[in-house]
Amino acid sequence: MESTTPNPTSTAAAELLTGANAKLLLDSVDAFLFDCDGVIWKGDKLIDGIPETLEMLRSKGKKLVFVTNNSTKSRIQYANKFRTLGLSVSQDEIFSSSFAAAMYLKVNQFPPQKKVYVIGGEGIVQELQLAGFTALGGPEDVEKRAQWKSNCLFEHDKDVGAVVVGLDPDINYYKLQYGTLCIRENPGCLFIATNRDSVGHMTDLQEWPGAGCMVGAICGSTEREPVVVGKPSTFMMEFLLQKFNLSTSRMCMVGDRLDTDILFGQNAGCKTLLVLSGVTTRSILDDPSNKIQPDYYTNKVSDILGLLGE
Amino acid sequence: MESTTPNPTSTAAAELLTGANAKLLLDSVDAFLFDCDGVIWKGDKLIDGIPETLEMLRSKGKKLVFVTNNSTKSRIQYANKFRTLGLSVSQDEIFSSSFAAAMYLKVNQFPPQKKVYVIGGEGIVQELQLAGFTALGGPEDVEKRAQWKSNCLFEHDKDVGAVVVGLDPDINYYKLQYGTLCIRENPGCLFIATNRDSVGHMTDLQEWPGAGCMVGAICGSTEREPVVVGKPSTFMMEFLLQKFNLSTSRMCMVGDRLDTDILFGQNAGCKTLLVLSGVTTRSILDDPSNKIQPDYYTNKVSDILGLLGE
Repeated sequence: MESTTPNPTSTAAAELLTGANAKLLLDSVDAFLFDCDGVIWKGDKLIDGIPETLEMLRSKGKKLVFVTNNSTKSRIQYANKFRTLGLSVSQDEIFSSSFAAAMYLKVNQFPPQKKVYVIGGEGIVQELQLAGFTALGGPEDVEKRAQWKSNCLFEHDKDVGAVVVGLDPDINYYKLQYGTLCIRENPGCLFIATNRDSVGHMTDLQEWPGAGCMVGAICGSTEREPVVVGKPSTFMMEFLLQKFNLSTSRMCMVGDRLDTDILFGQNAGCKTLLVLSGVTTRSILDDPSNKIQPDYYTNKVSDILGLLGE
Repeated sequence: MESTTPNPTSTAAAELLTGANAKLLLDSVDAFLFDCDGVIWKGDKLIDGIPETLEMLRSKGKKLVFVTNNSTKSRIQYANKFRTLGLSVSQDEIFSSSFAAAMYLKVNQFPPQKKVYVIGGEGIVQELQLAGFTALGGPEDVEKRAQWKSNCLFEHDKDVGAVVVGLDPDINYYKLQYGTLCIRENPGCLFIATNRDSVGHMTDLQEWPGAGCMVGAICGSTEREPVVVGKPSTFMMEFLLQKFNLSTSRMCMVGDRLDTDILFGQNAGCKTLLVLSGVTTRSILDDPSNKIQPDYYTNKVSDILGLLGE
């Protein structure tokens, strides 16, 4: 497995992408890892010039991988979203944190006779099932309620060996109690977080609580810290390296968030490109309080087309 | 205000309560602070000998105060619970974390034209209203749902200047989103936690997620830490001292939890008595990993009657 020493250039100020360094970047990289929201699309709208840019990169033999912390969809559901937006991306090119949770269990030889309790959406349940695991909870427990009475015993499945927590728009006390009991009372039960993003662009207009909210709730009730499988944890990267046999020094992570995408790329030793088409503005990047500097930055992914004269 | 230096005896091993030291304790103390659950009652059942013990302490001129981290009830609702169990305890003798939240705002001169958003139960809403504040949320928002659509704007009241978070059996995404937006977007908005107990005895049979669960969720989505007003924070103690003009060195905190009750008493410089009628067993107390030693311990509060030959 590839070493994951941080990129030594990460402390220098980011360089604006130009014709010259864009060419150098392309020549030095075999694979581009893209974050999706704020990079490929915003909400349900494709960002300008994406189809042409992806096409150009493919025509130059570059491998493309789409890495997202959003766990509400499975890879199949993501592939459909790409298709709806007119992009041809295969399921194998998509790495969502829902898939990462399933792969974490697979890689760590989670016993198939054990079950997984899900606080989160359909995406996690689908990925767990596709990987051959039995998933409980998730959308199934949306309407359930704990009975608040003396002498009430809340029954939980003693075969649950892992609780996976992700963004859950239908969070309720029943799910929190179920997950808490499994982690506190089932010996050796794992606590896995898809990611810990505090907020995310659930709508085009506002930031809403992200998976970090549900994960924080379970930290609070269990006094345990989770294993995080999404960005900026390098679990997905290590999995990718193993699968595609790539070197991180010949990869470039492209993202709109400094503390997840760029940090994720740097943690893994990749080159990094920040695009300003999402949550990060130029003034956030330049602020003295910001300690995370990508190798390069540009307004949007398709700038690369103009810079290379394609 | 009284100094709150830790009790210097707190690192010595706890002494079993005996006739001799029980008499010394009584002579050296003017007020007893009692935790309720696991000390006075367990769920809906009074613990043996409580009425006679409280009567004896009152007859000796001791002041009694009941301090609970449970925020689901207001002080009026607590006084009713005491009455139902056959105990005569006045509202003024009760300090719940719901009351503490209201008093924190009062003491810190929270502007009365500002509003308070509540993630928690009726108890918090009642105490805030009794203290003259406008409370939003709480039981009112149990059935509300956020609309997960592009271009959906979640409207929150810009006059909310504090979010109070306590145990909420009806937690949902709407409340988490409302509280998160107030804290993240309303300038200077306070984040107040009634307490951070990870779990509590909501039924006689099991531990269920406590306020620490909901507080953890808001920490996760806001990347902020709360002001805690319940045990083991000394806010309630400082308020008590100011109100009753007592000296902490002449107070004894009686509780069943090492990390809230006994730590709370020690943080404030009180004498401390652990009772084994709640969550702490003798083996937890004696375990080398336990760093919190009360001054005294005994099985249950009423042991004091026998020891004093009353």
